[in-house]
Amino acid sequence: MDRALLALGLLLSLPAVADEGMWTYDAFPVEAVKKAHGFTPTQAWLDKVRLGSVRLAGGCSASFVSPEGLVMTNHHCIRGCIEDLASPKEDLLAKGFQARTPAEERRCPKVEANQLVKMTDVTERMNTATKGLSGAAFNTALKKEMSAVESACATSTDVRCDVVTLFNGGKYHLYEYRRFQDVRLVFAPEFSMAAFGGDPDNFNFPRFGYDVAFLRVWKDEQPAKSPDYLPWAKTGAKDGDLVFVSGHPGGTERKASVAELEFQRDVNLPYTLLMLAEVRGKLKEYASTSPERFRTTRSRLRGVENGLKALRGRLQALADPALLAKKREDEAELRRRVEANPQVKAATAGAWEETAKALDTYRRMLPEYRMKEAGDAYGSELFGIARQLVRLSEEQGKPNAERLREYTDAQLPSLRQQLLRSAPIALELDESMLAFGLGRLRETLGADDPFVREVLGTESPEGLARALVRGTKLGDVKTRKALLEGGKAAVDASKDPMLLFARKVDGPAREVRKRYEDTVEAVLKRNGERLAKAHLAVYGTSGYPDATFTLRLNPGQVKGWEENGRPVASLTTFGGAYARHTGKEPFKLPDTWMKAKGKVPDATPLDMATTNDIIGGNSGSPVVDRDGRVVGLIFDGNLHSLGGRYAYVPETNRAVAVHGDGILAALEHVYGAARVVRELKAASDVEAPPAR
Amino acid sequence: MDRALLALGLLLSLPAVADEGMWTYDAFPVEAVKKAHGFTPTQAWLDKVRLGSVRLAGGCSASFVSPEGLVMTNHHCIRGCIEDLASPKEDLLAKGFQARTPAEERRCPKVEANQLVKMTDVTERMNTATKGLSGAAFNTALKKEMSAVESACATSTDVRCDVVTLFNGGKYHLYEYRRFQDVRLVFAPEFSMAAFGGDPDNFNFPRFGYDVAFLRVWKDEQPAKSPDYLPWAKTGAKDGDLVFVSGHPGGTERKASVAELEFQRDVNLPYTLLMLAEVRGKLKEYASTSPERFRTTRSRLRGVENGLKALRGRLQALADPALLAKKREDEAELRRRVEANPQVKAATAGAWEETAKALDTYRRMLPEYRMKEAGDAYGSELFGIARQLVRLSEEQGKPNAERLREYTDAQLPSLRQQLLRSAPIALELDESMLAFGLGRLRETLGADDPFVREVLGTESPEGLARALVRGTKLGDVKTRKALLEGGKAAVDASKDPMLLFARKVDGPAREVRKRYEDTVEAVLKRNGERLAKAHLAVYGTSGYPDATFTLRLNPGQVKGWEENGRPVASLTTFGGAYARHTGKEPFKLPDTWMKAKGKVPDATPLDMATTNDIIGGNSGSPVVDRDGRVVGLIFDGNLHSLGGRYAYVPETNRAVAVHGDGILAALEHVYGAARVVRELKAASDVEAPPAR
Repeated sequence: MDRALLALGLLLSLPAVADEGMWTYDAFPVEAVKKAHGFTPTQAWLDKVRLGSVRLAGGCSASFVSPEGLVMTNHHCIRGCIEDLASPKEDLLAKGFQARTPAEERRCPKVEANQLVKMTDVTERMNTATKGLSGAAFNTALKKEMSAVESACATSTDVRCDVVTLFNGGKYHLYEYRRFQDVRLVFAPEFSMAAFGGDPDNFNFPRFGYDVAFLRVWKDEQPAKSPDYLPWAKTGAKDGDLVFVSGHPGGTERKASVAELEFQRDVNLPYTLLMLAEVRGKLKEYASTSPERFRTTRSRLRGVENGLKALRGRLQALADPALLAKKREDEAELRRRVEANPQVKAATAGAWEETAKALDTYRRMLPEYRMKEAGDAYGSELFGIARQLVRLSEEQGKPNAERLREYTDAQLPSLRQQLLRSAPIALELDESMLAFGLGRLRETLGADDPFVREVLGTESPEGLARALVRGTKLGDVKTRKALLEGGKAAVDASKDPMLLFARKVDGPAREVRKRYEDTVEAVLKRNGERLAKAHLAVYGTSGYPDATFTLRLNPGQVKGWEENGRPVASLTTFGGAYARHTGKEPFKLPDTWMKAKGKVPDATPLDMATTNDIIGGNSGSPVVDRDGRVVGLIFDGNLHSLGGRYAYVPETNRAVAVHGDGILAALEHVYGAARVVRELKAASDVEAPPAR
Repeated sequence: MDRALLALGLLLSLPAVADEGMWTYDAFPVEAVKKAHGFTPTQAWLDKVRLGSVRLAGGCSASFVSPEGLVMTNHHCIRGCIEDLASPKEDLLAKGFQARTPAEERRCPKVEANQLVKMTDVTERMNTATKGLSGAAFNTALKKEMSAVESACATSTDVRCDVVTLFNGGKYHLYEYRRFQDVRLVFAPEFSMAAFGGDPDNFNFPRFGYDVAFLRVWKDEQPAKSPDYLPWAKTGAKDGDLVFVSGHPGGTERKASVAELEFQRDVNLPYTLLMLAEVRGKLKEYASTSPERFRTTRSRLRGVENGLKALRGRLQALADPALLAKKREDEAELRRRVEANPQVKAATAGAWEETAKALDTYRRMLPEYRMKEAGDAYGSELFGIARQLVRLSEEQGKPNAERLREYTDAQLPSLRQQLLRSAPIALELDESMLAFGLGRLRETLGADDPFVREVLGTESPEGLARALVRGTKLGDVKTRKALLEGGKAAVDASKDPMLLFARKVDGPAREVRKRYEDTVEAVLKRNGERLAKAHLAVYGTSGYPDATFTLRLNPGQVKGWEENGRPVASLTTFGGAYARHTGKEPFKLPDTWMKAKGKVPDATPLDMATTNDIIGGNSGSPVVDRDGRVVGLIFDGNLHSLGGRYAYVPETNRAVAVHGDGILAALEHVYGAARVVRELKAASDVEAPPAR
């Protein structure tokens, strides 16, 4: 403990230094980086890397790697697309995919790419709109003003505008993106190679995954131009090199209050983990009984296992007494400083107490909220469709600002797209998951709960799930289309059992949602904002804001660490991958790799560990060198990085990337992906290094 | 929160009053009970109820209910016996069992009944033996002295002697039991009725389970005499009645230090819960695929679900900020008092710190310990047999005091019995569970861990499990017998793959066990004892000791409670059971009950809730009235009772029992169990109420 405590203590007691920090581009600590690494990024360098960075709207990062719209990201970021494009006859996820010509590039129905072109501070507008408000009124006013600002900004379908929350509401910025809605699949390796090592190696290092995919943005049926791209490095990254990661960390809670961290540790994480663990046990057993079940379950199982491991890592971080002890100290210090400043003190009065009270309310409400509204009781795709149709039919009649947030005008196109997806639904799995959810509903709220009685009557969870899934016609796209186009009248008239069921649970679901939003969410948000402002008032804006799936830049180094006294090297190699091959899943290299054995020198780097401060959402982020050239592709972090949700520990927190050399070598010698290789090399040759 | 906090605060800040308290019979608070309930149990009353109480060595409670050795307990306490007696052709668990004559009573191979006849304080002897010792030396000396005292006392096979730990080591008592090793099954209802409501209703109330079974102790091929028995009540218990529970609460941690509670909350409970949740998901899915799989999985699944719900209840209790806040206050107060007393202060120096340090060590070691030694990596019955054979062959050559504790002479008879059980092993399930365990081993310690590499090599968990389970001959009783009788030479010579595997993992397993015992267990025990003595020194022995599966008596009341503002009545009825019948498991009444509908008046009580302070281990405890007559049979507690592990909350903590009237009515009118009914009634008529 002492060592870890020391490490943590050292880190947190100093201002953020060296490699910690998910910095926004408009406040990158150039001087600190210069001091730590002897390198000064210029504004031109920053602009170039920012514009070369891409956000995938589903929750990943990516980058432009050629002027012809070629985009690099992780295989796991577009697994959904690959499955959408697959068919029972053609298992693209297992086989991989390669477009030999532009015409063979296949559109990913749900993928949208964004490029951040402009950032504007709109804090004053938001503050004015919410001045003096609290609870539900605060929440409503904030959402309304955000919508207004976003609508005014989004002048065409090529522009996406988001008001983003920074410093927990201490700042609000308007982010303007160039938007690409036609994104096509260019290259994907086999799932077994992208996820080589499977769940055992996930969040581990040494690692030998090739979690790589290439996409292309199109515009008007032509590859779109992307003049601001990141050229490939001429020389690969070596141990000790300075590298930058530019991407979209999804969320951190480094500034969270102690009460919020304790809530995570005691309530939210255990609840969610127990659900995931049980689903995992179920899905693994289910998948083991037939190849078809394996195929329909594979991706979902991988997602569940990933979530399980990630959240367990967070729980473990919070179970370390040293981490929370330090957080308590920091909070006590902040309170002392707030106390010493009459103006800040007045503005912060009651904020900690109200936060704790809202969390206590949430603790009591959580099972009910998660079951009735958040969907834990209905783990079925068909139910999801039914709910969307029911809610859409009701929400569409309301003014935009009064709708449930997922039914505002801005959301409708993607909602529509989702409802009309032609990808088949695995009915047997859907029924099984619905039965599971309904069973959990009964055991969580109890057989005597009025909602449970209303939902189940004398049916068993299995019986009800069977009746709903086998009775509904919503698996058919045409039926969905008719209901969608028929609007409220059509939905109201439908006797589809799943639709009727979705309507039956909707009243209680909306009721608990409103209660949650008014008494928990709004209170936490408003007081989070007050605490954030107190923090800014006493410490200033010298730190970086918690991650919110907005673009951040982070400096780091290619570097291993020490695990239980054993050194872990920063680079793995192709030779290592072949040595780890056991012939049994998940350590079975695909045929392409077995056939290519020897074609790539054993010493060629495959994956690497770096000190970059990243988190979920950074998947697919480019790793660039001081020339702004690509030397790697983030796809994971080590186990210690999971605690990065709450604190960055420089000794052990590592990002995990596919090495740039490995990406190219496999494209060329394993996959024979000549077209992509040519494009990457041409872009690398043409492009001069950006101005330093 | 305020209300709960208040309730808890009130309770814990007063000395234990009213219905809280798991009292040993030699320190029953007669005066307090008189004050609270207006009833004074005499010494004769106490002796009578004590001698009518029975302990089932496997972890349950029971009672003598006739002078002919008839014993009443819960169905779930002897589920293992029923399964042992069943065959693939005769599913006794599903069908139930009834012996119409003494000759039809069937012996439970593993059940042993104990009757507590004498208690002696041996604290001084233990203290003398461990004086000045710490760490491993303390542990060894304590175990050695316990063995010596027990051996001297156990003068025949009819006598069992245990040195029991009370007040966390503040006191040691020698408990002398009359021992019955021939225990036979007399009556058991259907599993579906014993566990009516299944997992959803488990730990819930209102409840409609008939979790009842009758056994008989035999001696020399005759029913044994049991002159000290508890006669059936002439009048059943009503709401508000004073009732006592006499039984064996398994374990509480009400005196645990805050560090220990935090360790449970942050480390041990989450680890165990996540494993159980995953096993549950797996087993439920597995059981759903065929009737045979359902049959072989049923009992194990029920155990897993029970554990999952029980531990989740504990975690929820610890997640309530009010509970730990109160514990912190109590501990601070104890520390102040210790600090103020120079002698106690000196004796307690460093005890809290050493406890915290040992727990931190444990936190780091827990996954390794649980995997390698505690068996989480090897969830296989066949592996268990192999390990027992390997360890037995090694341990038998050592002096008794130096052996692993489960291989001391006292343990050998039951170990032998277990190894030679003829009950068939479900091989497919065994293989599946072993694969599951090996998979968890790899993911928990990591694919690069040397032990994992040694165990798996290039095999997959599934492949290794298949090879071991399909290759071993240990499923055959004759093979086991030969190895057992052949001793070390035979075991050493065996090439059985499971045996070789058990030997392969044994070195690393013993290594981590020793490290755990020396640096965690011994330190916690020794310092737990020091803290307990400090507590006794400043507060005296007016309280009750934490539960340790020793006989306790507790007063309470038949009483409902308020759940989320809704009153929950104390009694349920036969009519309620029929109303809850949905025809679908687990709410499907068996045919016997459906046929008997109307024979028992609807208003007849079936189950009841009482304020008695009980916990796991109390299952099967008799509920008696002020005449010492049976009015019920404990089989569960409500959800709030799960937090009773750490604190008793009088407003909501309820024990759940089958009502005495319901037991008789169903025996007579549902099951036509005339022989048992006659015996109970005769015993009730003959017996005069004990002296008050």
